[in-house]
Amino acid sequence: MDLHGLIRDLHEPAETKIVLLVADGLGGLPIEPNGKTELETARTPNLDALTREGVCGLSTPVLPGITPGSGPGHLALFGYDPMQYRIGRGILEALGINFQVGPRDVAVRGNFCTVDGAGLISDRRAGRPTTERCQAMCRLLQDVRIPGLDVFVEPVREHRLVVVFRGDHLGDAVNDTDPQQIGHKPLEAKGADPDSANTARAVNTFLVEAARLLKGQSPTNMVTLRGFARYPQIATMQAVYGLRPVAIAVYPMYRGLARLVGMEVAEAGATLSDLIETLRKLWSQFDFFFLHYKYTDSTGEDGNFPAKVEMIEHLDEELPKIRALDPDVLIVTGDHSTPSKLRSHSWHPVPTLLWSPTCRPDPVTEFGESYCLHGGLGQFQARYLLPLAMAHARRLGKFGA
Amino acid sequence: MDLHGLIRDLHEPAETKIVLLVADGLGGLPIEPNGKTELETARTPNLDALTREGVCGLSTPVLPGITPGSGPGHLALFGYDPMQYRIGRGILEALGINFQVGPRDVAVRGNFCTVDGAGLISDRRAGRPTTERCQAMCRLLQDVRIPGLDVFVEPVREHRLVVVFRGDHLGDAVNDTDPQQIGHKPLEAKGADPDSANTARAVNTFLVEAARLLKGQSPTNMVTLRGFARYPQIATMQAVYGLRPVAIAVYPMYRGLARLVGMEVAEAGATLSDLIETLRKLWSQFDFFFLHYKYTDSTGEDGNFPAKVEMIEHLDEELPKIRALDPDVLIVTGDHSTPSKLRSHSWHPVPTLLWSPTCRPDPVTEFGESYCLHGGLGQFQARYLLPLAMAHARRLGKFGA
Repeated sequence: MDLHGLIRDLHEPAETKIVLLVADGLGGLPIEPNGKTELETARTPNLDALTREGVCGLSTPVLPGITPGSGPGHLALFGYDPMQYRIGRGILEALGINFQVGPRDVAVRGNFCTVDGAGLISDRRAGRPTTERCQAMCRLLQDVRIPGLDVFVEPVREHRLVVVFRGDHLGDAVNDTDPQQIGHKPLEAKGADPDSANTARAVNTFLVEAARLLKGQSPTNMVTLRGFARYPQIATMQAVYGLRPVAIAVYPMYRGLARLVGMEVAEAGATLSDLIETLRKLWSQFDFFFLHYKYTDSTGEDGNFPAKVEMIEHLDEELPKIRALDPDVLIVTGDHSTPSKLRSHSWHPVPTLLWSPTCRPDPVTEFGESYCLHGGLGQFQARYLLPLAMAHARRLGKFGA
Repeated sequence: MDLHGLIRDLHEPAETKIVLLVADGLGGLPIEPNGKTELETARTPNLDALTREGVCGLSTPVLPGITPGSGPGHLALFGYDPMQYRIGRGILEALGINFQVGPRDVAVRGNFCTVDGAGLISDRRAGRPTTERCQAMCRLLQDVRIPGLDVFVEPVREHRLVVVFRGDHLGDAVNDTDPQQIGHKPLEAKGADPDSANTARAVNTFLVEAARLLKGQSPTNMVTLRGFARYPQIATMQAVYGLRPVAIAVYPMYRGLARLVGMEVAEAGATLSDLIETLRKLWSQFDFFFLHYKYTDSTGEDGNFPAKVEMIEHLDEELPKIRALDPDVLIVTGDHSTPSKLRSHSWHPVPTLLWSPTCRPDPVTEFGESYCLHGGLGQFQARYLLPLAMAHARRLGKFGA
């Protein structure tokens, strides 16, 4: 039996509350050899106090050396093995524009492109149209009708769009129609199994209609599609963990990821203070709270070390408001590292702090990557964090007699 | 999907170079309680400097408590799960005498033995003949012909030889013909499946011919066979990791193991200085370099603590020549521990050092088993070392969006 099967058997009701505060891309690197990371540089008296009472460690989101995207990074924190549960590109793109994908959906990323009189692609990105033009072209394509299916066409930005095919028996083993080079016609869609053949037929009909509707709209006179992805079949957190979970997040992709695992998704303002105000309001209605703080990642992606330090200090300042709610378990971690030095997500383990009254003391007194090396959580796979939180929340019974 | 599948999807081309320096049997034990290990005793200023800039840890070649042979120990370092990829005894023995096994081969270890007039075994090792006699007897057996197959008979030493059956549809689920006690006839070979039955038929023909050719050569007048092993199907490092790998090693078994995973195998002189000179010459032609340093293991097997210390110090002296080549990732580790105190391979975790400009600092300032306990790599399975090196070499893309 796998871990989920075990947790399903062992979880017990309780009145306890778990808060998972994800500082996106929290882990970092020093700029200079033997310098300090962003987190170690930041002045964080409140995190440090939490550290002294809790346990620390370093989490590996997927496996050593693997740099996760936001999807796998968050799935692990939600207690799902990211090697087992894959979320395809098309679905993630749809989540990112706040499109509510459902279990009958196959989503795919699209590009507007330019074709010549013979139907050969002359520009794979249609000269990078404005987002306004992208929206206008998508409105044209929203007239496509395919019998037995619903088709949704949604703009992303510039040449990019999302198409969602909704219906029964639709597979996602369908080739990209983008030939990846100019001077070729868009490829015909083919399905590798009967369900995917259903999708491919719908796709080919869609593309014939698209060519007709976009005729005369050069340079945005055709569409290519890539990254077909079916809605992933993921057991909900309610079913596996017996939790009533809610996501408090601003950015659509994280809201969408949370919805995929069965979380309610709350409306909230843009600042961390707004998120915590929402947390306070919802406190009595749920028992698992996922708070997503984006700015540690975006400053890291910008390569802005001082700004990332500042964002961490801001998080620290807001922390007492969460503690004031008196959670039973409070976790502060990231979904991956985003060192300013690398200006990108990285494979480095993520500093993690778990606070609860039942933590066994460890020697860590400050929150930072090098201190976490000596922490009671050790180095561990991120997918084990939620089971651990469940234990501290007294929500897991004994395994075996 | 497993880790190899993921790596196949994620690897990206790069101009970076990875050096894996394997000091065979590197890990050790103190002779006296609370004393120092061989590595901790050795004066290693160059390794220590590397340690201060890199990350350290302790690697488990297979699983806790499992003492690996050279095969599993090296497979793990080459990025293969040694629990999944098994290399049979016959194949390892063939590799050890520099026999180039291929995909159509079944290899098996043989013993010359003595049979009496009734065909009953009276000495399972034929009185331990000289290696010269072993060679002469093998020359006699090289006359055996089996229709549709090639048969190779190669001396090892004393009573030991290797036989290789080469052909199509040969399985290795064949019983040992050695009855393991005297007073019995050699056993008949039987195959547990159709392909192995093909092998068994060839084996029984071979043994009838062997008995005929060796008649009158008592005490070396018969042969028993054990450890039938087919050439293992292992995806190459090129296919899985996208690397151009080369092995720089003196001893045949390590050269053979490297060949099994697709490495080129370079000619090199016997000393570490010779190996590094070969490394220098091949620097532009490859991007993964496996250097094998045998003497830390052989001195450990001899139970010679001071000699093992000396071999480690010699390695340290040569290290600057490798650093002078400016690798992007430099790893120093062992394939297992060989404590002088135990005079054998052991299950103890292996001190490991990974240097690269993207390492996150850890507190380790000297290279040694007890210091590695506090290192940033933690305790980890050796098969994750290559994925980690790939990440630092910027050869792995992001997993998921």
